[in-house]
Amino acid sequence: MIKKVLIANRGEIAVRIIQACQELNIETVAVFSEADREALHVELAEEAYCIGPAPSSQSYLNIENILKIATLTNVDAIHPGYGFLAENVEFASLCKQCDITFIGPSPESIKQMGIKDVARQTMKEANVPIAPGSDGVIQNKDEAIQLAEEIGFPIIIKATAGGGGKGIRVARDVDSLKKGIEITEQEANTAFGNPGVYLEKYIEDFRHIEIQILADTHGNTVHLGERDCTIQRRMQKLIEETPSPAITTETREKMGESAIQAAKAVNYVGAGTVEFIYDYVNDIFYFMEMNTRIQVEHPITEMVTGIDIVKEQLRIASGLELQIKQEDIEQSGWSMECRINAEDPENNFMPSPGEIKQIIPPGGFGIRVDTAVYPGYTIQPFYDSMIAKLIVHGKNREDVITKMKRALQHYTIKGVKTTIPFLYQVLQNEDFISGEYNTNFLKIYSEKQEV
Amino acid sequence: MIKKVLIANRGEIAVRIIQACQELNIETVAVFSEADREALHVELAEEAYCIGPAPSSQSYLNIENILKIATLTNVDAIHPGYGFLAENVEFASLCKQCDITFIGPSPESIKQMGIKDVARQTMKEANVPIAPGSDGVIQNKDEAIQLAEEIGFPIIIKATAGGGGKGIRVARDVDSLKKGIEITEQEANTAFGNPGVYLEKYIEDFRHIEIQILADTHGNTVHLGERDCTIQRRMQKLIEETPSPAITTETREKMGESAIQAAKAVNYVGAGTVEFIYDYVNDIFYFMEMNTRIQVEHPITEMVTGIDIVKEQLRIASGLELQIKQEDIEQSGWSMECRINAEDPENNFMPSPGEIKQIIPPGGFGIRVDTAVYPGYTIQPFYDSMIAKLIVHGKNREDVITKMKRALQHYTIKGVKTTIPFLYQVLQNEDFISGEYNTNFLKIYSEKQEV
Repeated sequence: MIKKVLIANRGEIAVRIIQACQELNIETVAVFSEADREALHVELAEEAYCIGPAPSSQSYLNIENILKIATLTNVDAIHPGYGFLAENVEFASLCKQCDITFIGPSPESIKQMGIKDVARQTMKEANVPIAPGSDGVIQNKDEAIQLAEEIGFPIIIKATAGGGGKGIRVARDVDSLKKGIEITEQEANTAFGNPGVYLEKYIEDFRHIEIQILADTHGNTVHLGERDCTIQRRMQKLIEETPSPAITTETREKMGESAIQAAKAVNYVGAGTVEFIYDYVNDIFYFMEMNTRIQVEHPITEMVTGIDIVKEQLRIASGLELQIKQEDIEQSGWSMECRINAEDPENNFMPSPGEIKQIIPPGGFGIRVDTAVYPGYTIQPFYDSMIAKLIVHGKNREDVITKMKRALQHYTIKGVKTTIPFLYQVLQNEDFISGEYNTNFLKIYSEKQEV
Repeated sequence: MIKKVLIANRGEIAVRIIQACQELNIETVAVFSEADREALHVELAEEAYCIGPAPSSQSYLNIENILKIATLTNVDAIHPGYGFLAENVEFASLCKQCDITFIGPSPESIKQMGIKDVARQTMKEANVPIAPGSDGVIQNKDEAIQLAEEIGFPIIIKATAGGGGKGIRVARDVDSLKKGIEITEQEANTAFGNPGVYLEKYIEDFRHIEIQILADTHGNTVHLGERDCTIQRRMQKLIEETPSPAITTETREKMGESAIQAAKAVNYVGAGTVEFIYDYVNDIFYFMEMNTRIQVEHPITEMVTGIDIVKEQLRIASGLELQIKQEDIEQSGWSMECRINAEDPENNFMPSPGEIKQIIPPGGFGIRVDTAVYPGYTIQPFYDSMIAKLIVHGKNREDVITKMKRALQHYTIKGVKTTIPFLYQVLQNEDFISGEYNTNFLKIYSEKQEV
């Protein structure tokens, strides 16, 4: 078993990983930027080292410094969390070269899923359903226009190096397709150093449903059911739940099998998530992308399955065999997560960094809080604006919505603006309560001027 | 369904009841003493009213003021929590007279269980096993000596008006029996206004095991399994867990049946706990007493059964029928609670009231915190010294102990002394880990000078 882990991350996910390590008797090494000296993960880890100035490029993305600390502290493994270096092929390769276990899949798997048009091709060959679209990166606009006319508008333009809702654009006619390709290519080149884009049919009304998978080094791959992440704002998830109120047991099973096929196609090892576009009108799903890392919303799956996904990551990275069999995995009850951010929902969700004057989390039965924020802590402007993930577990969806509303009401946060009032309004919305909505929910909602 | 509830209590249990009410869409009225203006239950309830000065006798035990507020605010019901008026027959009767539902059993049931020698007699008639002892209150010392010699020393002297570990004394010979009776009678007269004592055979090596029951107004009574509360200091519980590591399925079932018989014998309605002395050497259990109210340690039962006991209290008080059948109640996994008090374990557990300068609760998977304490809050010297109940749920006992240790380590509390270091040491003790110990655990432990 791994004995000592460096956590190459910050915030709630660093704290979450420290919790799992310590419960497995694994020593922890935290790293932090100069802005994060007072961060909770620094306090909770057995050792902690500064790796550079506040901007991520100089600290949390500073591969050299991180590997130096890893070597000096003699860790067996590095957990990258999510974001930062979690899906960085170079970093995963360098870990391997330094004989340090990268807690995640192989550099090859990351690469195969990271280049989105390659992933699409791999999925096609593995019989995982993909939306109609281009075979790989498009070569010129004429080809693109011809293809778009064949499969029909609207068309979605996606940067092959993008992902997580970044580097994508919808085109509704030939003109916007031409312009869209130009802009997306430029943006992708700037953001990812790779201008390649590909096309897919855009499903107007869809739900975002994803499958959590676990794969060990012994060839066993299981899925832990789905998470419905349809409530998004500008393609960023806000509320996630499991089970999905929109799929049948049959669809769940099919989607689960497809996710396992997807993982196997890239020899996947570790915890990962296969995201699908679910066309609920026609009960068809298409592969969207695979996140080759732990996800923000993993706790809701833990709540209904009883499986600690971060501990499984650590066990798998230690070379242990999965102890869970597919037939033993059950979803018990319902779970929902709200992402509470330091943002001003009344001012276009502008980040609201600053000192937390007071914070009193909600407590009681069925409430879980994953956070790294405490009274007196200052939310830094350099990083994401997350304050906490509020996770609720209950008997059924109605029960969970009621509990979540209560918990949001009981969450006292003073000193910064938060998304709590906004989340509360979503939970009161009739369409949300009915369970019948798609990824345009918030667009429609704000057009109705209810927010 | 009840629409509005007054919570005649303070601290974490008042907050817990407010949570349950609000999740059932029931309005809440808090009451508070002059010392509790800044208390969390005051903040979270929809309405809140001051009922008198800090000493409990003038506020939380001030029946007149509480009923005035109840009448003025038009509540349907009063939840007494635990302690204070929870087992006060007069209060329960007055509620009835005022046409306000007392959330608990009838005054008659409280009385039948509250007078401990009467309860003993009732249990005997209902075929619930009781320890050998006196038939009711002892009349004189000669009778006591004769009886003690018949059943054999050691003997336990119990005030009939006592309970909860109060008003009891062990006698090991005739001399200590005579003195013990005198002192206990005097103390009982002062404390409870009733000098009556009775005798029972003292089981030297026993475990405290109790059964949670729920009974509705339609004649249905179920039990939710046991809680093992063997880790006590001076007869006050410190750590509770479920299941008990000391009983078999067969004993659990027998004990559960006896608890249901006990409840039925007094026409019990609501949530209640039947406490047993478990003589594990001989696998025999004896009725100890029944707590006719919600208990501090109820959350561990909620964690393993998924049943919200406070919500069940509210449903039962609304006249609804229990929706759970005995055969559907299962214990899933393991749960443990540590009571974190503002006390100095290095100074004979002296209360340590004062301002909480900082408090950061532990978070993550399987952690529940029930508390009314927040940063800047001042722990009052007038009331019990509880800071929080830290509740953990996991797969098995080993898992839960590991999680609890991690959670205790992650609990930051500054400004007052706490029992956290002491609890941590107990969790590391070999006998505790083995699960083989009795109510003398802490006595033996401190004699070994490990604390």
